[in-house]
Amino acid sequence: MSSTFRAVHQVARPDGAPGAEHFAVVEHPLPAVEPGTALAENIYLSVDPYMRELMDEEWPLHEPLGYGRAIGRIVRSEDPDLQVGDLVEHGGGWSTHALIQHGYGRVIRPAAGVATATYLSVLGATGLTAYVGVREILRVQAGEAVYISAAAGAVGGVAGQIAKLTGAAHVVGSAGSAAKVRHVVERLGFDAAFDYHDGPVAELLAKAAPNGVHAVLEGVGGDHLEAAIGSTREFGRIAWVGSISQYNHPDRPPAAPRNLYAVSDRSIHLRGYQVRHFMHLRQEAQIWLTPHLQAGRIVADEQIVDGFENVVEAFLGVMRGDNTGKMLVRVGEE
Amino acid sequence: MSSTFRAVHQVARPDGAPGAEHFAVVEHPLPAVEPGTALAENIYLSVDPYMRELMDEEWPLHEPLGYGRAIGRIVRSEDPDLQVGDLVEHGGGWSTHALIQHGYGRVIRPAAGVATATYLSVLGATGLTAYVGVREILRVQAGEAVYISAAAGAVGGVAGQIAKLTGAAHVVGSAGSAAKVRHVVERLGFDAAFDYHDGPVAELLAKAAPNGVHAVLEGVGGDHLEAAIGSTREFGRIAWVGSISQYNHPDRPPAAPRNLYAVSDRSIHLRGYQVRHFMHLRQEAQIWLTPHLQAGRIVADEQIVDGFENVVEAFLGVMRGDNTGKMLVRVGEE
Repeated sequence: MSSTFRAVHQVARPDGAPGAEHFAVVEHPLPAVEPGTALAENIYLSVDPYMRELMDEEWPLHEPLGYGRAIGRIVRSEDPDLQVGDLVEHGGGWSTHALIQHGYGRVIRPAAGVATATYLSVLGATGLTAYVGVREILRVQAGEAVYISAAAGAVGGVAGQIAKLTGAAHVVGSAGSAAKVRHVVERLGFDAAFDYHDGPVAELLAKAAPNGVHAVLEGVGGDHLEAAIGSTREFGRIAWVGSISQYNHPDRPPAAPRNLYAVSDRSIHLRGYQVRHFMHLRQEAQIWLTPHLQAGRIVADEQIVDGFENVVEAFLGVMRGDNTGKMLVRVGEE
Repeated sequence: MSSTFRAVHQVARPDGAPGAEHFAVVEHPLPAVEPGTALAENIYLSVDPYMRELMDEEWPLHEPLGYGRAIGRIVRSEDPDLQVGDLVEHGGGWSTHALIQHGYGRVIRPAAGVATATYLSVLGATGLTAYVGVREILRVQAGEAVYISAAAGAVGGVAGQIAKLTGAAHVVGSAGSAAKVRHVVERLGFDAAFDYHDGPVAELLAKAAPNGVHAVLEGVGGDHLEAAIGSTREFGRIAWVGSISQYNHPDRPPAAPRNLYAVSDRSIHLRGYQVRHFMHLRQEAQIWLTPHLQAGRIVADEQIVDGFENVVEAFLGVMRGDNTGKMLVRVGEE
């Protein structure tokens, strides 16, 4: 094994859209494995929209970036809970190796027929976000009409499939291209989808769900949230999990929905959530999702980029909406 | 009995604040009491902020105004459920008399020590709105900090008292004058209150509840809702029951809260509601509230104006915020 590892640093704070110039890859000596720690060689790294928010404050400059979910294999261990050879999911960020403190790595034993990468997509925080939204927050009921924005994205694609399996009668998605619209309907089984570039989102949604919707999973913000509010029926529910449209300009949020008052007027629940508040449902979600994955009733929709040198570009692509499904970077051999 | 009755008509649609010029009092012949109807002579009429919304569309021009809650006494009846002499609560609007269709009047038998007017305030839709907000939507728990806007208003004043009786540790209200602030604290038992003219609402609320609040009952909208969102803790709840600040300009809603994204970021529930969706809780609310009223633990905070000729001015006063507590108009003898 080499005596060094590579890590992505953030080297500048962006004003607006992030670019390659805000990052650098830096080589570091491998850290010492003290008692209570273990060293993992990473296999898959996750790149996610929420990281854009970390870039403004939480990620320090000129240090290896933390927080990002990853799967690695233990290569040295002074932690009795982690053995050399174990596959471990952890939050060590965009590095080829990670030193895992005791209690911060979770051993993965992939279920039969389930690929390792799935533990960063449908069986990871992404799938948990979708599961919490559809089943814990929205509590979608059989027969309901459901709208899911960013349906070709990592969370939206899983959420639509969960909604269908939960009995939703009509699941409508929005996505950013004709190809994504086809993907969402043909591969992920949405009942309908539209390209939000084809007109005002509110009008497109009203056409796709002419009787309104009972429940919405919204992660875009701006006019997508406004359209969601406009289409939600009396007593309807909106789970609002993020606002990718504003992450590049947190100081200049989009005009909040002009129709926000409908939330009061139609007795709507607008419930925000962050998956970090629902980690206690992780096991429940895995138990629910795994047999559906094994039976092919849920598609693990992933886009896997090869090579550690491509991690920043993969992230920038997610922020541009280039991806369909969960974007992962393969940085090592299983 | 006279052969005529008087009714308020709306004669023009306002553009902005309503005025006396939008209304007229018109004399009509008393209607025939057909089988299945009964005639009530009204005693109390309710004037409420939601009526401003009716003025834009629902209230027809040049007809007696419907929807308003009233209490009257039956003077003629062809309805076996309503007997001459019965006190009846109904939605017949701003008239001296009302013809009540079968099933649209509810007989009131005031509990010992409870004034008739109370059935249009704490025991009417106003008190039900407060009860639903605090106990059904917010589910306020013992020890929590609660913020209530428009605390000197009809709904807010009852809501604060219910929150205290439910065990809230710190109930903060906002109101529109120093006199109202004193009233809310000294007479209604709020723990703290501030005059929203004294500075930015968000700053005043942050000072009155420095650790944030668990639950909010909001009925003003605009910067009051923004302040509420800003002060709500992780997983906190906001019951949003109306938006009096925008009723005069429904086509120009106030800038929706610039901090709306905090609803997603702090996993807040923003739940809109209209009391018409919760009429099934009316009996539960009366059963809960009545003994508290009888024991003096809840103050029926009413402002009663005398004379049918003053009903429009009483309503305009509510829209200007002149009232403390529930504004009622006495138009007949009990």
